[in-house]
Amino acid sequence: MSSAAAKPKHQPGRHFLQIPGPSNVPDRVLRAIDRPTMDHRGPDFGRLGREVLDRLKPVFGTEGPVIIFPGSGTGAWEAALVNTLSPGDRVLMFETGHFATLWQEMARKLGIVTEFVPGDWRSGVDAAAIEARLAEDSTHSIKAVAVVHNETSTGVTSDIGAVRRAIDAAGHPALLFVDTVSSLASIEYRHDEWGVDVTVTGSQKGLMLPPGLGFNAVSEKARSVAKTARLPRAYWDWEAMLGINPTGYFPYTPATNLLYGLNEALILLVEEEGLPAVFARHQRHGEATRRAVRTWGLEVLCRNPAEYSPVLTAVMTPDGHDADALRATILERSNMSLGNGLGRLKGRVFRIGHLGDFNDLMLVGTLAGVEMGLATAGVPYTKGGVQAAMDYLGGNR
Amino acid sequence: MSSAAAKPKHQPGRHFLQIPGPSNVPDRVLRAIDRPTMDHRGPDFGRLGREVLDRLKPVFGTEGPVIIFPGSGTGAWEAALVNTLSPGDRVLMFETGHFATLWQEMARKLGIVTEFVPGDWRSGVDAAAIEARLAEDSTHSIKAVAVVHNETSTGVTSDIGAVRRAIDAAGHPALLFVDTVSSLASIEYRHDEWGVDVTVTGSQKGLMLPPGLGFNAVSEKARSVAKTARLPRAYWDWEAMLGINPTGYFPYTPATNLLYGLNEALILLVEEEGLPAVFARHQRHGEATRRAVRTWGLEVLCRNPAEYSPVLTAVMTPDGHDADALRATILERSNMSLGNGLGRLKGRVFRIGHLGDFNDLMLVGTLAGVEMGLATAGVPYTKGGVQAAMDYLGGNR
Amino acid sequence: MSSAAAKPKHQPGRHFLQIPGPSNVPDRVLRAIDRPTMDHRGPDFGRLGREVLDRLKPVFGTEGPVIIFPGSGTGAWEAALVNTLSPGDRVLMFETGHFATLWQEMARKLGIVTEFVPGDWRSGVDAAAIEARLAEDSTHSIKAVAVVHNETSTGVTSDIGAVRRAIDAAGHPALLFVDTVSSLASIEYRHDEWGVDVTVTGSQKGLMLPPGLGFNAVSEKARSVAKTARLPRAYWDWEAMLGINPTGYFPYTPATNLLYGLNEALILLVEEEGLPAVFARHQRHGEATRRAVRTWGLEVLCRNPAEYSPVLTAVMTPDGHDADALRATILERSNMSLGNGLGRLKGRVFRIGHLGDFNDLMLVGTLAGVEMGLATAGVPYTKGGVQAAMDYLGGNR
Amino acid sequence: MSSAAAKPKHQPGRHFLQIPGPSNVPDRVLRAIDRPTMDHRGPDFGRLGREVLDRLKPVFGTEGPVIIFPGSGTGAWEAALVNTLSPGDRVLMFETGHFATLWQEMARKLGIVTEFVPGDWRSGVDAAAIEARLAEDSTHSIKAVAVVHNETSTGVTSDIGAVRRAIDAAGHPALLFVDTVSSLASIEYRHDEWGVDVTVTGSQKGLMLPPGLGFNAVSEKARSVAKTARLPRAYWDWEAMLGINPTGYFPYTPATNLLYGLNEALILLVEEEGLPAVFARHQRHGEATRRAVRTWGLEVLCRNPAEYSPVLTAVMTPDGHDADALRATILERSNMSLGNGLGRLKGRVFRIGHLGDFNDLMLVGTLAGVEMGLATAGVPYTKGGVQAAMDYLGGNR
Repeated sequence: MSSAAAKPKHQPGRHFLQIPGPSNVPDRVLRAIDRPTMDHRGPDFGRLGREVLDRLKPVFGTEGPVIIFPGSGTGAWEAALVNTLSPGDRVLMFETGHFATLWQEMARKLGIVTEFVPGDWRSGVDAAAIEARLAEDSTHSIKAVAVVHNETSTGVTSDIGAVRRAIDAAGHPALLFVDTVSSLASIEYRHDEWGVDVTVTGSQKGLMLPPGLGFNAVSEKARSVAKTARLPRAYWDWEAMLGINPTGYFPYTPATNLLYGLNEALILLVEEEGLPAVFARHQRHGEATRRAVRTWGLEVLCRNPAEYSPVLTAVMTPDGHDADALRATILERSNMSLGNGLGRLKGRVFRIGHLGDFNDLMLVGTLAGVEMGLATAGVPYTKGGVQAAMDYLGGNR
Repeated sequence: MSSAAAKPKHQPGRHFLQIPGPSNVPDRVLRAIDRPTMDHRGPDFGRLGREVLDRLKPVFGTEGPVIIFPGSGTGAWEAALVNTLSPGDRVLMFETGHFATLWQEMARKLGIVTEFVPGDWRSGVDAAAIEARLAEDSTHSIKAVAVVHNETSTGVTSDIGAVRRAIDAAGHPALLFVDTVSSLASIEYRHDEWGVDVTVTGSQKGLMLPPGLGFNAVSEKARSVAKTARLPRAYWDWEAMLGINPTGYFPYTPATNLLYGLNEALILLVEEEGLPAVFARHQRHGEATRRAVRTWGLEVLCRNPAEYSPVLTAVMTPDGHDADALRATILERSNMSLGNGLGRLKGRVFRIGHLGDFNDLMLVGTLAGVEMGLATAGVPYTKGGVQAAMDYLGGNR
Repeated sequence: MSSAAAKPKHQPGRHFLQIPGPSNVPDRVLRAIDRPTMDHRGPDFGRLGREVLDRLKPVFGTEGPVIIFPGSGTGAWEAALVNTLSPGDRVLMFETGHFATLWQEMARKLGIVTEFVPGDWRSGVDAAAIEARLAEDSTHSIKAVAVVHNETSTGVTSDIGAVRRAIDAAGHPALLFVDTVSSLASIEYRHDEWGVDVTVTGSQKGLMLPPGLGFNAVSEKARSVAKTARLPRAYWDWEAMLGINPTGYFPYTPATNLLYGLNEALILLVEEEGLPAVFARHQRHGEATRRAVRTWGLEVLCRNPAEYSPVLTAVMTPDGHDADALRATILERSNMSLGNGLGRLKGRVFRIGHLGDFNDLMLVGTLAGVEMGLATAGVPYTKGGVQAAMDYLGGNR
Repeated sequence: MSSAAAKPKHQPGRHFLQIPGPSNVPDRVLRAIDRPTMDHRGPDFGRLGREVLDRLKPVFGTEGPVIIFPGSGTGAWEAALVNTLSPGDRVLMFETGHFATLWQEMARKLGIVTEFVPGDWRSGVDAAAIEARLAEDSTHSIKAVAVVHNETSTGVTSDIGAVRRAIDAAGHPALLFVDTVSSLASIEYRHDEWGVDVTVTGSQKGLMLPPGLGFNAVSEKARSVAKTARLPRAYWDWEAMLGINPTGYFPYTPATNLLYGLNEALILLVEEEGLPAVFARHQRHGEATRRAVRTWGLEVLCRNPAEYSPVLTAVMTPDGHDADALRATILERSNMSLGNGLGRLKGRVFRIGHLGDFNDLMLVGTLAGVEMGLATAGVPYTKGGVQAAMDYLGGNR
């Protein structure tokens, strides 16, 4: 990082923001955010609020309420916990990677007892392990199971339907919390059908907005449990929100301009492109990316093809080759940001985001930035990754 | 409020957003927010973060750190409490109006014991009462005194320096928390000089941004106390912020685009107009507004001239005249939003915001909207308020 | 004017752009212009072009074609002349003010022989004089009559229907050209009904756009005459435009982003507010302004009430009081731009624009800026102009 | 083209606007254009005008004046002609392609006698032919030589320095006019050093603006000749501009918001990236593109490597393969616009723009769109073009 005094060199052309979120924000969404702020207690706001709250439901796959907080996805994690749990409650979590670890750390900071099933940061949640642990828990001391749908640090997805089936098979009443921060609106998701109690997400990935909004979709069961949960809460309290939201208003000042953008993004996703097309596009771009990676002779971090992420691909650099040096080279020479290795993966992987407002030619440009960067940075690789991606993309529409 | 289906009639010209916040956002700030989102872990972001965090200090009157949360001012209230207090701690608060009441309710929800000195919603904090109460508290059971600098629901300011002197006179170690949500960057404020321990604010008033950011300025003493405070906290935890902020980065995803806007707003306030000019402008507009109100024969809610707010003026409607009906008339006929009466003031007052990005002609337009609205709505008044304001403005530059 | 080095002092709040054009541009129009430029030969452009060309027709009151040039209203003047006239042709024009004079000078530069009926710059076109002159012209040496609908330099309108009747009464075949640069979309206009052959306008007044587009609405007769007109023309040639416009395309690169804005402005004017409401609003604001002027004891430049402009009001300053000094005072102290006296009116009048995206409270703010400016600049006046305007506005919706 | 009723399918991600102009407009320039329109006669405008007029000079390589017209490049062509020529004057032009042909047609429409040296639309200007023709013209009946620097329809550049030497070698006093519509600010250009008398350009290519501004840089000699030139002119008249421009103002309403954008674009080009870097970038992208084309086995339209355009590459499709069908396929499947074949090249070439606000990854994405499109459209080609471009780009910084 240069000093504050050193002005960065101007780089022409569009920056390629290929971190796995914040994702590229469509121009229409940025322009919507640029509208004058309005009275959050006036009639125009009520109309906006009702529209946005309705348009969100199909994205979560729910008929129930979705709550919008001014805050980040991290805040939405906290909201899920403090509305449903009491000090000392036990939660079963699964170490899929950095963000699962951070969520677990947050739970402990808030006074929750966590059981953290160890993971290798290359695999998703093991539903059988969950079933086994819950089956043992005859006293139902475990109050909730909390998992990450798409682990942003590793590019590994977990099968949420299977987690639900595991809980049911164990006949256990635990709540199910799912972090969809980097999956929602990019990967198909079914809050109601999968019996999720709290779905957590943020604005800056599949929803194609700048960061600044956190979301909870909540089940009837979660809402009922919240009545007796004793963790202190005020800002994140669901009931204050749910009491007034049907009118389109919020209990405290909402992030008005981001809501303008959210409404526009939902129109793009749900009404114009259509969610099935959005999901298929992300799948296709994930596959094209992995073909490039394999052609380069590099290894995708995710071990299990059934768990490949359509949203990002984490790529391992060969031993002795620092992934962060590669990223710095690519940023300087190709005006592209890639995601870094987080936590124990620092320096060992780089992450390619292929989510949000994105298309084939942006993907090829992205992969070209990586392929040219491998050469410049002296990372051993085999040419042809971009070509492999194009071969796939060209034949798959 | 019309139904979702009823599209509002288009109203030509610029909307007059004269609620006491969100305030009018300058075009330059909106355009800054409209820039593409960037990598919040890249070098450009670090530069932005350091700039913004530095530029904030003079606005708070502090050499110490200022913390920025993605969230609202309500979140910043919560941050002040959960970082410094433990369950069952006692806090002395003062009922200046609706927001002081909400803050007190929040404290109680979070497990704090509050002593809430009753107020008449027309006056500021009585420093003598605080001194008396603290002097009684020989066991130092009171851990903090929490007051509102400018009560947005009433248009009454409190003398924070006097509160500090009262605490000192009582020789009491209580922390001092101050809500400056609607005063910061509009009314002179001296976090360091007044010995404030936590200053709480939001983005959408004097800082001339859309809502979506909350702030805490924290003293060394507050930070030290935080080490042993036991309220659970994670999202709002200061130390996680303060550990990484000197590099310009944040522990979780910041609200990037609002930070673009914040930097631009600080340039406007601190470097272009200059804070002394900003403060003088708000004083002048407050006085002009009150002259209009008095000419109309209406009563300013604030009883004590020393406590008049330079940011907003709450005006009482005569008995039998609903302030909300008046506001609806003005919105429909003059395309202007005014603040409603909150809590016990519902229907009895309307609030004129004269803060943020505002000037003389906007103020006259605002007052004209009120004066014409009084006529239309059949509220008894005497003509000439706008003229009185102009007489004052014309002679006072 | 300060030197290039001297940076202007920042002025808070919204600038009041109360020159009689460019007018205040709605935020929605500015945001539309801010969209990425598109391929002007691609299918999306064709759709845009057809929409815009269709939406323009009711604003001109025509079923015939409207031509859009990248250029200013001055260019559209030239287009009217070069498409229809041959070197040495004679045109009857009327000296209503500065812009009528400039148009006449342009015609002479282009090789046209002009007869310029003298005027006092305080009155509109005298239709009887036109009839008399045409009646004399038994050889039909006069090829066209060219008049200004709303003279921007004086705030005087002319009765175009009366001009048409005068031409008809004289039984003369002259073409009728009308400059509507500052009237179109603010004052009712009927190109077809009034038998206008070429209507000339620009984008930056009633159409609420930045400057950069010029327009010609053309009659069948004008188009037919154009076939034999011999002034050289290429850029402004109608037929090249009319040949391709039905497809939504243009013969050379159009000003794409201004067309985005034009489409949005037309939606606002025609579909949302509605042209009758737009016209009534301008009438109302003109009357309110004149009441203020009269109360101040100042003289409206326009002599004849039937010719008052709903778009701007030119106000005479008393002898010995320089209107430009007054304007400079108002700009510096009240952040408002007013129109200057042009040509022979320099220093003797100032012009208040009350057109475009404008509303009651903006008008009161505008008039307050004038009233306070009169005091500051030491121009003798009587207080109460703003009050008089409010009295009128308050009772007239 | 679909009917007006058929709404186009939404395409996610950034559109690739790879026509050879309008080019991709930087976000900063679009946001600058989105600022509120100002008084074009006020002091802030004067400052802006002076800044813009000064910043333009190095881009043209001139110390002399540059004139800005509201209009397109086509208008700037007309301005060059009508300011310097009289009816019946003879101009020597060179058929480099479609735009040279259009300029010649315009000259004839305006009453100029043109000598149009035939060309094959695959080569630049033959300076020797010019010298020979001028040498013959002992009576100096030829008043001007007019050539195109970068023929946008063919991707062929001409050596302007060589044209100047040819004129000098013939000892002929003809003026030299150069169209730089698609070269200026992308290819090095030296108005003064090459003795150009009128340089013509537009805003929408190298200057990275939306269309809507035309420019003339004029020599002292041209300005002197203009005094006696007799083509009628008014809108395009240089002297009216040059009389007032030194103050930063314009004789008629300028296209204010595009001037905001122009100032920002000039800061990007001249002060941030730097013109030498801008020129080198375009050269590099041209070479990378041609390597791709050759690898595909397709033919670059430009015959002579010394004349390759750094701004665009026109590519011939094999016989029996319609270039427009290919372009439609690419637009639909890859969300990219390419330039069509113009005039006699219709259906036989497509044109790849690699100019304006552009970088390596955008170029690879662009070439990938072509390569995948060739496959989809069934045009015979050899794979590997994108790879060849990457090989070159990767090694050339």
